[in-house]
Amino acid sequence: MTTLAEVALRAGVTPATVSNVLRKRGKVGAATRQRVLDAVEFLGYRPHLTARALAEGSAPTLALMVTSIANPFYPEFALAAERAARKNGRFLIVCNTNEDPVISRAYLDQIAGTLSEGVLVMNSRIGFDDLHTTRARGTPVVLCMWERPDVSPGLPCVAVDFFAAGALAAQHLLDLGHTRIGAIIGSQPEGVQAARYAGFCHTLKAAGVAHPAQEARFTRDAVQGGYEAACELLTEHTDLTAIFATNDLPALGAMHAAADRGMRIPDDLSVIGITDIQLARESRPGLSTVAVPTDAAATMAVELLEALIESGGHCETPMRIAPEPVLVQRASTGRVRS
Amino acid sequence: MTTLAEVALRAGVTPATVSNVLRKRGKVGAATRQRVLDAVEFLGYRPHLTARALAEGSAPTLALMVTSIANPFYPEFALAAERAARKNGRFLIVCNTNEDPVISRAYLDQIAGTLSEGVLVMNSRIGFDDLHTTRARGTPVVLCMWERPDVSPGLPCVAVDFFAAGALAAQHLLDLGHTRIGAIIGSQPEGVQAARYAGFCHTLKAAGVAHPAQEARFTRDAVQGGYEAACELLTEHTDLTAIFATNDLPALGAMHAAADRGMRIPDDLSVIGITDIQLARESRPGLSTVAVPTDAAATMAVELLEALIESGGHCETPMRIAPEPVLVQRASTGRVRS
Repeated sequence: MTTLAEVALRAGVTPATVSNVLRKRGKVGAATRQRVLDAVEFLGYRPHLTARALAEGSAPTLALMVTSIANPFYPEFALAAERAARKNGRFLIVCNTNEDPVISRAYLDQIAGTLSEGVLVMNSRIGFDDLHTTRARGTPVVLCMWERPDVSPGLPCVAVDFFAAGALAAQHLLDLGHTRIGAIIGSQPEGVQAARYAGFCHTLKAAGVAHPAQEARFTRDAVQGGYEAACELLTEHTDLTAIFATNDLPALGAMHAAADRGMRIPDDLSVIGITDIQLARESRPGLSTVAVPTDAAATMAVELLEALIESGGHCETPMRIAPEPVLVQRASTGRVRS
Repeated sequence: MTTLAEVALRAGVTPATVSNVLRKRGKVGAATRQRVLDAVEFLGYRPHLTARALAEGSAPTLALMVTSIANPFYPEFALAAERAARKNGRFLIVCNTNEDPVISRAYLDQIAGTLSEGVLVMNSRIGFDDLHTTRARGTPVVLCMWERPDVSPGLPCVAVDFFAAGALAAQHLLDLGHTRIGAIIGSQPEGVQAARYAGFCHTLKAAGVAHPAQEARFTRDAVQGGYEAACELLTEHTDLTAIFATNDLPALGAMHAAADRGMRIPDDLSVIGITDIQLARESRPGLSTVAVPTDAAATMAVELLEALIESGGHCETPMRIAPEPVLVQRASTGRVRS
């Protein structure tokens, strides 16, 4: 590999001067600068590509903005997105917004279009106005897992049919004979997990199974949120035989709540989630869930973003639909107790 | 907030020209360029800071390189590091190396010193040569959780006394009466978790408790790695009453292995890990562990890196020692079975 010293030798300058030219620091005359850049080019010195990309404002990175990197789903998605980005030599940088709109805005202002050629947005609490502003400045934005394939968000997106996911989970519990089913929703009623709950309710209603509002809890999308919600549900409605959670983390919390009350899963209580994160496979008992196409959605989001970058922001199909969710039955669901 | 259009109006150019100047794209005459930059400055247009920072090669970001973002410890560390970085207005971008030295090198070449002012390195399989090269090019590097406070890595670092962590875990099991203890190490014998295992062995030896080599397994730092190792240990050594794992993930796998064999925890088997990740608190039973100072180490690493950035790479105390690990007893450890 060519070294900085070899570039300096060829250009007849000090290594510090080469560094200054590449990083645009210090004062270097135009002729010297050109000599350094020629030597860099001739020797194929590596940082050159980056230096040029930066000079042209097109560093080869994509930014992935996530709400909370502590939620284990996001790292799984990030891994898949990174693999897709690397195919075309791009890097993925992960920006954690901590659910803070101010931090989100700052990332967009600081990174979009400068450090990164494009932005993937994952369930972030970023205002759509901010995303439109970023787009208007010429940086493509893709929403990664838009929850409503039937409604355009007004931005390029990859949509996942989460309504169908909720419906599949409900149908699975109905097939096992459950009719007394509590629900834990990992967002507020109008939040990002509303479509999943709507699919669940729709399927129960179509089957003529009652689901009173007091048997649902809206909570944080976390193990502890699910734990607390399940404790309430199991205390107040002792005849529940199953719990549906709109995400795997609260579903795992519901399993812990049942275990702490001495309930056996699935003999005393069936539990099902949505997503199929690694923890769902690794928990004991294994968590039944509706798997969403994380890898496929990540790949499609990167491909859509790259298409937008290449085309200057134009795209004929700004919404791409990810493959359908599928039921994954494990040990946490069983026939209703008699 | 000032808009691009207002800048364009004041400079007497089109918004596209303002954008070209800020992103250094297209051909813009020097006088026009200056007029645009003056307008940007006068109106306090936001992207200006970034544009200038980029022009000066000092974008306000730090890069955190992690081996595998899918390991839940790294997001926890990243959150803490981000909080610390944000205090001084810097952003943290997370780069996942996937344990691949080639990707690691590419990140260093592409990002260090250009996109990022400094690099935090976490347990990555990056060759030290590559890190020294990065440093030599003028970009400070800090190793985040160096495992040996007694030995300098030759690079600025925050050290955590993992030998002490292993010793604490061993002492806890000894205090509960265990003398037949299997060990699961989440790395190879010379790998990053060797110091933890050395502390464990040292404490057992000091207490006169035998620990034959065949009662240890070196495996992947993952739930599944611990699961498989524990299955082997519990099959081959049926008199083991406790398992020590050098990390929480394999410890959780050991708990699953015991559960799958119908063993009760802690009545039939005690299990202890190291780190105290969120999953340790959320598992059932809760995992006893030795907590390492994740938040403190992350904060110290960012502060050290920022000190190096401010000082041009010089620092009087290139190794900083994080607070001591502490035992956290939960429900997975108990008195030895009689």
